[in-house]
Amino acid sequence: MSSEFVSLEQCLETHIPEQELKEVKRILYGGEVPLLTIPEQAEKLSQKHNFEIKGYQISAAKEDLTSPRIVRVGITQHSIVAETTAPVSAQRAAIHEKITLMTEAAALCGVNILCFQELWTMPYFFCTREKQPWCEFAECAVSGPTTQLCQELARKYNMVIVSSILERDHTHGDTLWNTAVVISNTGYYLGKSRKNHIPRVGDFSESTYYMEGDTGHVVFQTHFGRIAVNICYGRHHPQNWMMYGVNGAEIVFNPSATVGGLSEPLWGVEARNAAVANSYFACAINRVGVETFPNEFTSGDGKSAHKNTDFFYGSSFVAAPDGSRTPGLSRTRDGLLVCEMDLNLCRQAKDSWGFRMTQRLDLYASSLSAAIQPDYEPPIIKDLC
Amino acid sequence: MSSEFVSLEQCLETHIPEQELKEVKRILYGGEVPLLTIPEQAEKLSQKHNFEIKGYQISAAKEDLTSPRIVRVGITQHSIVAETTAPVSAQRAAIHEKITLMTEAAALCGVNILCFQELWTMPYFFCTREKQPWCEFAECAVSGPTTQLCQELARKYNMVIVSSILERDHTHGDTLWNTAVVISNTGYYLGKSRKNHIPRVGDFSESTYYMEGDTGHVVFQTHFGRIAVNICYGRHHPQNWMMYGVNGAEIVFNPSATVGGLSEPLWGVEARNAAVANSYFACAINRVGVETFPNEFTSGDGKSAHKNTDFFYGSSFVAAPDGSRTPGLSRTRDGLLVCEMDLNLCRQAKDSWGFRMTQRLDLYASSLSAAIQPDYEPPIIKDLC
Repeated sequence: MSSEFVSLEQCLETHIPEQELKEVKRILYGGEVPLLTIPEQAEKLSQKHNFEIKGYQISAAKEDLTSPRIVRVGITQHSIVAETTAPVSAQRAAIHEKITLMTEAAALCGVNILCFQELWTMPYFFCTREKQPWCEFAECAVSGPTTQLCQELARKYNMVIVSSILERDHTHGDTLWNTAVVISNTGYYLGKSRKNHIPRVGDFSESTYYMEGDTGHVVFQTHFGRIAVNICYGRHHPQNWMMYGVNGAEIVFNPSATVGGLSEPLWGVEARNAAVANSYFACAINRVGVETFPNEFTSGDGKSAHKNTDFFYGSSFVAAPDGSRTPGLSRTRDGLLVCEMDLNLCRQAKDSWGFRMTQRLDLYASSLSAAIQPDYEPPIIKDLC
Repeated sequence: MSSEFVSLEQCLETHIPEQELKEVKRILYGGEVPLLTIPEQAEKLSQKHNFEIKGYQISAAKEDLTSPRIVRVGITQHSIVAETTAPVSAQRAAIHEKITLMTEAAALCGVNILCFQELWTMPYFFCTREKQPWCEFAECAVSGPTTQLCQELARKYNMVIVSSILERDHTHGDTLWNTAVVISNTGYYLGKSRKNHIPRVGDFSESTYYMEGDTGHVVFQTHFGRIAVNICYGRHHPQNWMMYGVNGAEIVFNPSATVGGLSEPLWGVEARNAAVANSYFACAINRVGVETFPNEFTSGDGKSAHKNTDFFYGSSFVAAPDGSRTPGLSRTRDGLLVCEMDLNLCRQAKDSWGFRMTQRLDLYASSLSAAIQPDYEPPIIKDLC
């Protein structure tokens, strides 16, 4: 049933009586998030090109001294387009075209900051562990064709764009990196943020291709707010989420590529935990579909060789610092989620729960500094009986 | 409806058709955890004294070189017994009696390690901000009457007991602490672990009574496994959970006292996120009921003075390192949850997902050491346009 089950939210809405549904939503989602009206033109575009659009509003309390800091954030999830046997150029061009349309829809919805899924220009080929032709998908972060496309779109729509690509770093030995490029709303290359934690599990053989990122926990002060990018597997590491918060992020994007068998029960947990613990908005983004490769590969699970990946389950959502969250996009379809948020909610959550005041960073700086020493002796009290 | 809604799980079971329920449970709970048979004598005791008992089994893969490391963990949730106007001695004695019965039930279920809720001997009086008579509930961790009771029970039933109390430290200025005492299965006082993060929100005026704990992230090597205690509000701090893992804990208890309006949407998220991120079992424990105090107090929320706390929602559960979890106990009734677990699952989860290998503690030791400096300049890339 897994790939036919459209979404958890749809199932709950269908079967649970209204009065109880309210309690279920309160416990599971922190309440019901109001809908945002999607403009007709955007709806039409999405119907024509077969992707869904959902819109939500997360507001903050009115303040006397500070005006609301309203920003519309968009996140997209999509399947690949061409077969993986097509030339690399054709595969990339087809996805560029799809994302250009989705970006147009986002612009029609008034999106200010748009983030695509992880490695959005390519199939998730790391499962093959083959180097060619796949490494051809790598591009220069500053001037590659994908960055150029994003710059055009950013300028055209006055939109900050976060674009996760496979990076080729020509100035450092032609090395590969898993990198998010941030383009300002004026089309200017603001900088990049590399994936800090690299998986080594199942089809996720990324450590075959690139190393742990060396850009630390950089935050981008854009025209619309302070953003950061925690790429994919970094969401399993709360300390990674934490450092983006320590450095001032108000919105952290988590562009991902992850499959049902591995991570789905954690999907609603990790980004949301991070949003609450760090008093910022966290945007969890996954791809959709099953991808088929020319040559068979194994998944390190003792099963037979095969040519298909497991099922990428979409379900992209936005989590707020106050413990609320939007429903997820579909598990199966391309989609654009638009979330209008008031960034004042970040500071209000800090003032209310106080997690940023009570986090005792000095304790952890010294505890971790001790713990990483080779001769560290953990404080373990032993029962000698 | 909030206080009549018995549990999320019961609601889902009642309304969702079988085939879809399987998917819902997979996504929300990581699948279905098998039930543990509860002995008839324990059932009888629980019926007679009006508390529920639920039992679950979380197993691990068979290994060649290592035998299963099976341990039965018990957690209890309960309401107070006597009115808060009764003498302190009577209030405490009545709860001692209730817990003695629940411990007997746990022993009948073969529990090896039992943990009670936070400050289990007393009402949650911090909302009043009154010092008398409430501070009388404080006891010596090593030799107070509650520790003595736990020692008797531990010896009688060959059970490790984790007992969260309000501590009076006579050797350090008669200071108060929020402290968990760990008693070995032979009745020996193993040590104590103090609450590291203290709330300052709503009815949780604990900072009026005691300071942040100074016992760091101590782990107790008991006869049945390595355990640690992350008390209540510490569950909002992922770095706190992390250090117990770094120091070797296999089971981390989170005895809590928390209310619906404040934290319920986070309850299923935080302990579970910690179990996965740190590859250990996390046991989330809350109290139940509404507590009424003699004098009115306000809750810092602009509402009128009142004498009742908000609703403590129970829902205690166990989360496993593989992303699975047990259902929660009821939101309204006293209860004992017994979970049989194979501690090999901790290492197996480390090997499978690799989160402990990929966590880059050295990066965070240096990042945090830098971040706590008064003149720290976060790495923020500014859009100058």
